Parts: sequence; structure tokens; C-alpha cells
Amino acid sequence: MGLNMVRRLQRAGVRCVAYDTRAEAREAAAGDGADTADSLPDLVAKLASPRAIWLMLPTAVVDAVLDELLPQLAAGDMLIDGGNSHYVDDLRRARRLQQRGVLYVDVGVSGGVWGKDRGYCQMIGGPVEAYRHLEPAFAALAPGVAAAPRSPGRQGEPTPAEHGYLHCGPNGAGHFVKMVHNGIEYGLMAAYAEGLNILHCANVGREQRAADAETAPLEHPEHYQYDFPLADVVELWRRGSVIGSWLLDLTAIELAADASLARYSGQVSDSGEGRWTAMAAIEEGVPAPVLTSALFSRFASRGNDVYADKLMSAMRHAFGGHEEKPAGG
Amino acid sequence: MGLNMVRRLQRAGVRCVAYDTRAEAREAAAGDGADTADSLPDLVAKLASPRAIWLMLPTAVVDAVLDELLPQLAAGDMLIDGGNSHYVDDLRRARRLQQRGVLYVDVGVSGGVWGKDRGYCQMIGGPVEAYRHLEPAFAALAPGVAAAPRSPGRQGEPTPAEHGYLHCGPNGAGHFVKMVHNGIEYGLMAAYAEGLNILHCANVGREQRAADAETAPLEHPEHYQYDFPLADVVELWRRGSVIGSWLLDLTAIELAADASLARYSGQVSDSGEGRWTAMAAIEEGVPAPVLTSALFSRFASRGNDVYADKLMSAMRHAFGGHEEKPAGG
Amino acid sequence: MGLNMVRRLQRAGVRCVAYDTRAEAREAAAGDGADTADSLPDLVAKLASPRAIWLMLPTAVVDAVLDELLPQLAAGDMLIDGGNSHYVDDLRRARRLQQRGVLYVDVGVSGGVWGKDRGYCQMIGGPVEAYRHLEPAFAALAPGVAAAPRSPGRQGEPTPAEHGYLHCGPNGAGHFVKMVHNGIEYGLMAAYAEGLNILHCANVGREQRAADAETAPLEHPEHYQYDFPLADVVELWRRGSVIGSWLLDLTAIELAADASLARYSGQVSDSGEGRWTAMAAIEEGVPAPVLTSALFSRFASRGNDVYADKLMSAMRHAFGGHEEKPAGG
Amino acid sequence: MGLNMVRRLQRAGVRCVAYDTRAEAREAAAGDGADTADSLPDLVAKLASPRAIWLMLPTAVVDAVLDELLPQLAAGDMLIDGGNSHYVDDLRRARRLQQRGVLYVDVGVSGGVWGKDRGYCQMIGGPVEAYRHLEPAFAALAPGVAAAPRSPGRQGEPTPAEHGYLHCGPNGAGHFVKMVHNGIEYGLMAAYAEGLNILHCANVGREQRAADAETAPLEHPEHYQYDFPLADVVELWRRGSVIGSWLLDLTAIELAADASLARYSGQVSDSGEGRWTAMAAIEEGVPAPVLTSALFSRFASRGNDVYADKLMSAMRHAFGGHEEKPAGG
Repeated sequence: MGLNMVRRLQRAGVRCVAYDTRAEAREAAAGDGADTADSLPDLVAKLASPRAIWLMLPTAVVDAVLDELLPQLAAGDMLIDGGNSHYVDDLRRARRLQQRGVLYVDVGVSGGVWGKDRGYCQMIGGPVEAYRHLEPAFAALAPGVAAAPRSPGRQGEPTPAEHGYLHCGPNGAGHFVKMVHNGIEYGLMAAYAEGLNILHCANVGREQRAADAETAPLEHPEHYQYDFPLADVVELWRRGSVIGSWLLDLTAIELAADASLARYSGQVSDSGEGRWTAMAAIEEGVPAPVLTSALFSRFASRGNDVYADKLMSAMRHAFGGHEEKPAGG
Repeated sequence: MGLNMVRRLQRAGVRCVAYDTRAEAREAAAGDGADTADSLPDLVAKLASPRAIWLMLPTAVVDAVLDELLPQLAAGDMLIDGGNSHYVDDLRRARRLQQRGVLYVDVGVSGGVWGKDRGYCQMIGGPVEAYRHLEPAFAALAPGVAAAPRSPGRQGEPTPAEHGYLHCGPNGAGHFVKMVHNGIEYGLMAAYAEGLNILHCANVGREQRAADAETAPLEHPEHYQYDFPLADVVELWRRGSVIGSWLLDLTAIELAADASLARYSGQVSDSGEGRWTAMAAIEEGVPAPVLTSALFSRFASRGNDVYADKLMSAMRHAFGGHEEKPAGG
Repeated sequence: MGLNMVRRLQRAGVRCVAYDTRAEAREAAAGDGADTADSLPDLVAKLASPRAIWLMLPTAVVDAVLDELLPQLAAGDMLIDGGNSHYVDDLRRARRLQQRGVLYVDVGVSGGVWGKDRGYCQMIGGPVEAYRHLEPAFAALAPGVAAAPRSPGRQGEPTPAEHGYLHCGPNGAGHFVKMVHNGIEYGLMAAYAEGLNILHCANVGREQRAADAETAPLEHPEHYQYDFPLADVVELWRRGSVIGSWLLDLTAIELAADASLARYSGQVSDSGEGRWTAMAAIEEGVPAPVLTSALFSRFASRGNDVYADKLMSAMRHAFGGHEEKPAGG
Repeated sequence: MGLNMVRRLQRAGVRCVAYDTRAEAREAAAGDGADTADSLPDLVAKLASPRAIWLMLPTAVVDAVLDELLPQLAAGDMLIDGGNSHYVDDLRRARRLQQRGVLYVDVGVSGGVWGKDRGYCQMIGGPVEAYRHLEPAFAALAPGVAAAPRSPGRQGEPTPAEHGYLHCGPNGAGHFVKMVHNGIEYGLMAAYAEGLNILHCANVGREQRAADAETAPLEHPEHYQYDFPLADVVELWRRGSVIGSWLLDLTAIELAADASLARYSGQVSDSGEGRWTAMAAIEEGVPAPVLTSALFSRFASRGNDVYADKLMSAMRHAFGGHEEKPAGG
């Protein structure tokens, strides 16, 4: 993702010095006209003061890189964490950097592999002076006003939010909003996935069903005789319906390629932000059953519910002598 | 909604005879160039054979209108139910009409108050011959190909789905797909609502909190000190983010008008389809925790959880002597 | 279950004529002193008027047996369905039997394989006159007053409910209460299962964890270093805790035998009533997120979530180029 | 709760020095034969070495009391936290006390207001030597072997778990198990509450219902005509059913007193452990939809879902022109 962001910045005339531990990534950046650095010290040396260093790293390694970078920075330098850090870590890091006069900026970046062309939606937290200094970079990365029709009621000069970047508040605010953004994303994805699964299984009335006390009867098999053309259904919903969205656009592409989704096994990863969103809801005392259910579905997709399921089978055996049946019922 | 559909049809050159029990609706249709009828018999009389009668009615009154209409129809006539009927009722009605040679078509229509200009997404079930006969009307109502960028991978002449209408299968298929569509809509709406509520409450660390055994401690009040500009956050997400959608566009309009949403009380209605979606999932044996949680949130918003809550307070009193605290904690 | 009920009835002096399609079941009943019948006509012939015929059958075959039995019955006879029928079917059957003057009684019976010794909890719906006639049988099957300490506040002659049987209302009332009883059972089982699974996985901090953007970081591995003795924990909770219950007693037995539950695969069946409970909640407009989540966990345990999970992996691939990781993360 | 524990200890011959900031509590303890202290220093002075000090405090004030106590303690002293602390705090406190040679023991105690007579179920974490030293006190507080029938399969000398106390592991283990215990408790309570609410609303078919597009139709009002005698139903379930439990016993008492539960408003507090359980599940990557739904129901009962509900009403207004209806639908 970092490489694509460099490309978009360079294209907009924002000069970058790119560093990546992998040589091929550095070469790719060079091929796009960026300067490159061979090491963190080299990167620091090649930047003019005040330096602005933008990190795009897995959450788990941010602190290690900060440890290495911090002694090389000077007061007034800016350090931007554009990865998916927990906003609580931002608060800690901001305090630490502040002791050396370094300004910390947390930016939640959405856009995925499409961002290079589509632009990046940026949720920004940190000191106003750093935000102002970096605004040209934010604007270059952002999708721009034309990316969506103007909301009725909005007037005058478009605001930064209408360009696709927003100063959300003090440190942590950027990653907090990005965290919730991703929490919502989990919910949206699960809503589509559950609904399409219901359509996918709308032919269960055709199956033969055991008539024993272990199998829930299907009272009206004649109601479940449909074979829906899912790729077309999703394509249809892209036009004029209430549930149109960019995620639906992507789903249409995937289903058009293979409606059976045979290349996927269904082990759905989660990368932290859905978890933090649920935990924030819990700490705030705010109900979030939809977002949390979506998260739990991912956990279950990876088999982390098996012991619980065995317990339920064990209880059924204990009180009713029920034996487990094979899968698929 | 019927009136707007008439307008869109007339505009596309599909001639309509409009009937509504309310005179002002009939007059409005006349003002748009449609013929009008004063009664159901008048409507039937004014249509040429084979007649195509499109009903836009609340679910609860469809059967009564059918009772009145059916004796007046002839073999080969077509009756289209474009409301939000349960697909199970379609199966029953289709059999009934078939006995008189009348063709029944169920159409799930999405588009809301915006459909007149934006077009209507139509999910169609019923006999192929009726679908073919009615296709010009479906095409006139549909948003059209230009309503969304073509999905990468789609080639050749655009399919009906790409225009915004789709023959989903035999009778019931249209309303089944619409039912699930609305079930998904509930899930999407709740995902945004829960996420924005978490942002809305991100300042709970500022509140004073009782230090007693009845109140969950907030271990890090310093983590919840944010006042997020929700209208701008939503506007921001419309550009470049993974969670952009039409529902988000609408939310941006509402929040730009009043981010406090003071004109709403939060009693959220449901009109049947979210319920049927959940029941279909249950009958199919398919998990739908997100869609069902979204539905239950609506039930709870209308106070239907109060007796359950009282029971939990009663149990807490019984085992721990806990007394209820006032709201808001 | 029918055989054990015969034993308990015989033991209490209530004479039974037992019929089962399997000869060994009939012989077992005979060995316990019951008369037996070789066929339904034989059963009908051997009973004195007014006959009371108690069915214990899988839901799916009740109507077929009724079809066969009904022509052989006389006005004033009583037909008791003690299986797990849907209460909606009771309403239909009661009307049908009433046309011949046969009284229909629906009884929800809880007790499982333990009922022979522990007694059966009976939830009864139907005409009062049939209930009165059958009360000696209900009393014989019931656990009796001594099965639980009297509730503080209850005075005077113990009510039938305190014996373990209750006339809950007109037809359907018995199976409605039993339906909800089983719905609650699903919720209780899942609550224990989820909690014990959390204890079971309390050592995840010991695992090595990938530090990539696909894996949610575990911020404090030192908090998850516990190996809990689950069999002892459950045994402990049986004494003095708020969560003691009969299901917990059974769980203690199972975990004492093998805390790894290796003999179970975790495919959890459901037999209908959890589904009907959820559907009743939905029709009533009453939130039931706990009971419904418990039901959906069972569906997921049988793999019925796989297509939904594949869809989520497909979306993640589409927007972020994420590849699936192997299970267990 | 502390006072009742003192009474139980004294009754068993375990001598206590009791301290409470409220004089009436100290006097009550003195009336039961305990020595009392007027202040923390007085308490420390009156205890022989090695001292064992058992705290029963709201979570939020434990650290403040530790700050005051710690300087007065000596190596080898034991400090027991019997309140509902978060196990993560135990880890921190244990390390801190260890620096002064003080042994920290975390004990989750279940039993509520009934514990004085029924005994306390104790989940213990900490150093083995402290556990051994304190075992007579644990045994005195515990319900004892006779509190539950022995589990089939258990043989030989009853284990501590069978008495009602258990050393669950190193520090934090006691409160971890107690945390999950309470998380399960939330799930059990919600399961009963939801089920009984479904029974409570089983007469919705009698209500008049609007036939408009805002109101979900009730397709079969004749299926919802029941007035269930809830107090009797719960009493019934106490005998012979699969869902018997101590919580059900308590519910029976409350419903016998007033089945309408008029004295409760339905604002259900939560005291932390349900939250921590959900967060532990999330950090472990383990699905806990039932326990988390139960927690969220409590949040919603206190009105913390209102802004989310307003958002859903606002979206419905935006896409469909829907106006909110008054409550109760």
C-alpha cells in the first residue's frame, strides 16, 4: 500500500524519499520517480527539516521501528503512522515523541489496492500545526471532490472532508475513526454475506431430510425450491437499490468471475480493528450487536468455536442420549 | 411510490391508467399525462387485453384487492404485485390466479422516494411469458445501464441485471430476493448506526462515574475524550473509503442537516421483510446473526424488551440484593 | 423416552397398553408389566372407553399416525401428543379431532433419559375436561413436590406446578411453553459453552503469532497464560455459585469423564424448537438475541456458514488483495 | 457481603478482626463475636503474623486501599482480594506486593446475599503457599460437599472443588474464572428473560394492528392468543425439566411475589465482569455471541442505543420518506 501511496504523491508533485526493507519495493518506487533510501538512517539523512516521515507498517512492528527512528529525529519533525494502529497506542506514542519535540500524527487510511487510482480516504488525528503542514500531502492522496456527488445541503467552498481527508481531533482521533470505520466494514460485509448465503441455500427444500428426533423438520419444502443467479442478483442491486455500495460493486466482480467462490475456503482473517471497535463499544457501554456478531462470525470461520460446540454436543448427549449426526444437516 | 412509478413510465412512453382510492393521487397522475380510473371496475374496463395491472399496496390489503379484482379479469391477463408481499403469499396467489388463467408476477421494487429520478431496481418472479410481455415496462422503470460503472469482467450486450431489472425465477423469486435485499438493508443500516453511536459516545471519559459495585468501572477515561464531527466524518467516508454506499450518502444528508438528529425519537419501524428474512434463514438452517441482531435492535427500540429487562433486574435483586439505578449509566 | 414413561406410569399403578413398531421395545414394556399391542388397531381395541392414547413420536410422523388412528377413535376419546410438535400444528390437529368429538391434548415433556427416575416436567395444553381426566397420569409422571425445595412465599396445598405438571392453557399452550423452554435451553447451553471455551483458550498468549497485516495482534500475551482445570471448575460451580443448574451438573459429569471431549466432533443438531422459539419472537416483535445467537451457533457448527465466509474472504481479496490464511488464527 | 462472610467464618471457628468504614457494620460484626478494628492501622496491629487480610471492596477503590495498607505490611503477610477485580489488575498488584514479600491472592466469590447460609463458591488464584495457609478459611466459607449430589464418576476423598473452593492457578486465575462465571451468569439470565418475554407477549394476536406500509403484518393473529401464568410456568420448570437452576429458583420467588414485576423499571446495571468476559473472548479470538448479546441487552436497557436508533429512523426517512410511529408496535 505504501508504494501506491508514493506513486499517487509523486504524480501530484509531492516529492517522496521511499524506504522499504525489500529491495524490489524500493526499485519500484524509484521507477516511479521517487528518491529512495537504503536504510532508516539514510532516509532520515535525505529528508529536509522539518522532516515528515510516513510509516505504513503492520501494527505489531510500529514500536520497534519507532525505537530505531526516534533518536535520529529532531524537534519539529513529524512522524505519521498511516497503518492500522490501535488509537490507544497513538496516545502513548504521541506523549513519548512529544518529549523530544517530535509531532506525532495518526492517519487512518482506507482505499486498499484501489487507492492508487481511486484515492485514499484519510482520517487524521494529531496537533493542528502538523496537520496544516501536511495538508498538501493529504490533499494529493485524497480522492478529491469529484469522487462523489455533492451532498444536497452542502454549500460554498468544499471542506476537506469533501475532498476525502479530515482532521478528526487530537492524537488518536484518526485511528479511532478508522477503527470504527473498519468495524462498520465488518458489519456491512457480514450483512451482504449472510443475505447472499440465504439466497444460496434457497433450494434446501429439494434435499431429502431425515424424519427423526435429531433433525429439525422443514415444514414447507415447497417454499425453498429456488436457484438464484447470484452474480446477476448482485449486479442488479448495483442499480437503483437501497443497498448499493462499493463493497457490493466488488462482490459483483468476484461473483461474476466465479459464483461458486471455489478458490476460497472461508477462513476469514481479522486484523485487529474489528476487535478494538467491539472493545470500545463495550467500554463505552454502547450496544454493538451487529458489529460484534460480524466479528464473531470471523472467529467461528477459523474454527475457534469447536470446543464450545463439543460442549453442546456433550450436554445433549448427557441429558437426552443424543448422538451427533454428520455435518450438513 | 405508485404515482412516481406512473410518472417514470409515462415519461418513457409506456401508457398508464392510474387508479388510487385518493382523488388527489388520481389527479396528480392525470396531471402527468396518465389516464385515470375512478374504481377498480373502471380500471379493468379501460385496459386493453391482455391487461397488465400493477398493484402497489400495503402487504396487509393485497388479498382483499385481489378478491375484488379477480372476477373481473380474463385468461391471459397479468397481475403484478409490486409491493412488499411475503413470497410465500405469492406462491398461494399464483396458484389461485392460475386457475382462471391469469398470470401472476411478483416484483420486488427498491428505490424509495428517489426512484422517480434515479430509477427502480426490480427483482422479478413469475412465468417467463409474462416477464417477456412486461419487459418494456421493467426497462422503463429501471435505472438503466449508466446508473453504475460496468463491472470489470462483464462484456458484450448489457444484461437486464445491468439495466436494473432481473427475472430471478418462478413465482415468489422476485419477492424472495427483495426480502433478502431488505434484510441486508437492515444489517447495513444497523452497522452504520452502531458505528456512529460508538463515535458519538467517544467522550464518555469526561463523565463523572459512581465508584460502587453497581457501576462498571471505566478503566481508562483518558481514552474516551473525543468529540467527533459526525457529519464531516460521514461526508469523508463517501470518498475513497471501503464503506461508501448510497445509505451513507443519505446519512450524510441527514447529519449535515442536524447531527443531533433531534427530530427523531428513535422508534424504528419494521415492515415485515426483515422478519421474513430472519425466518427464512432459520428455516434453511443458515446462520444470520447480523441481520437478526439488526432486526432485534428495532424491536428493542420500540420498548418490546422491557419485560425481559425487568426480569433481569428482578434476578439481580433476588441473588444480590441489587437495586436498580436510574438510566444512562 | 416412551418406554421410560410407561415404566414410571406402571410403577405408580397407572395401567398402560404399550405399542411400538419395534418388537424389542414392546417386549421391554411387557417386561415392566405393561400390556402391549401389536398394531394400532390392536392398541385401540385393548383400551377401555374413553380411550387415552399418548403419542411419543418424532414431529415429522405425527400426522401420518393421526391419519391412521383417527378413524378408529370414538367421541370422548383423548389423544395426547407428548412429542415435540410445533404448537401451530396442535391448533390444526385439535380442530380436526374436535370434528369427531376426540379431545386433543398437547403435552411438552422435559426430562430426557433421566426422566424415568427423576420424573417428567409436563407442560399441558387442551380442554380442561381432558386435563382433569388425565391428571392421575400427569401426577404419576411428574417428579413430585419433593423434587425441589418449596419457593419461599408459596403456601397452602402445593399446586400442580409444584408437583411438576401444569395446565398452561387451551390447545397449543403446552407445546408453546415447551417450545420456549427448549429455546431457553439452547441459550443456557450456549452460555456455558461459550464461557468454558473462553477458559479453554486462556492460554493463547503462549502461541507464536504472525506479525503481519492479516493477523490481529494480541497486545498482552502475558494475560493469556492460564491452563484451567475445566472439570474441576465446573464441579466447583455446582456448589454455592449463582450459575448452578442441572445442565451444569451434566456438564460436570461429561468433563470429569474426558475434559478434552475427544469423542465429540462439535456438529450440534437442533430439533426444531429452538427455531420455532426464534420465529415466535420475531412474529411477536420481541427481541431474542441470546436465544437466536445460540441457535445460529448450532447452524454454524454444522458448516452452514461456509458460503457466507467465502463471500467475506472474496470481498477482502477484492478490496485489499488479502489472501486467506490457514485455520486456527 | 463482607459482614456475612465474617459471620460464616466465625461460626466455623475461624477468628476474624473486622473493619468497615461504617460503624454500624463494625458493630454488627462485633455482635457476631468478631473482633473489630477502627482503622486500617488498627486492623494491621490486631492481626498476628503472618497476617491475612481479606478485602471485600468495589473494584474502583481497591488500589487506593492497597496504597494505604501496603506500607504497613510485612514480608510473609497475605492480602486477599475477594471483590470483583479485573484479573489483569491482579497481575499488576501481585507484582507490586511481591516486591515487599507480601503474597497476593485473588478470590472470585459467588453467593450473593444467600452466601451466609448457603456458603460461598470460591475461585482462587495465587501462590500455592498462600493458598495452603488460607485453606481452612476457604473451607469454612465454602458450601461443603453436601451442597450438591456427588457427580457420577467422581470417587475417593472429595476434592476441594467438591467442597466449593478451588485453586484455579497463579495470580489472576481466580478472578479470571470468576469473570467468566459472571459472563455466563449474564447469558443465563438473558436466556430466561428472553424466553419469558416471549411467553409474556404470546397474546399479541389480540391487539389491533395498523394495515399500513410501516407496520409488519402479523400473519396469524390466531397463533398468539395465550395468557400464560408465568409464575406457575417458572415454578413448574423447577421440577424435572432440563432448564432447572438456582437462577430459575430465584425467578420463581420474584414472579410469585408479583408476576408483573411492577417494582422494576428494567434499567439493568452491569458491574464490569460481563464486559471483561466479552473483551477476553475478543482478545482470544473466540466467539461469544450469546454472552455479548446478553451484555448489550443491558446497555440497551439503559438507553445507550438511542442515538443509533435515531440514525436508523433518519435513514428510513431519507430513502423512503418514512415517518416514525409511536412506541409499542
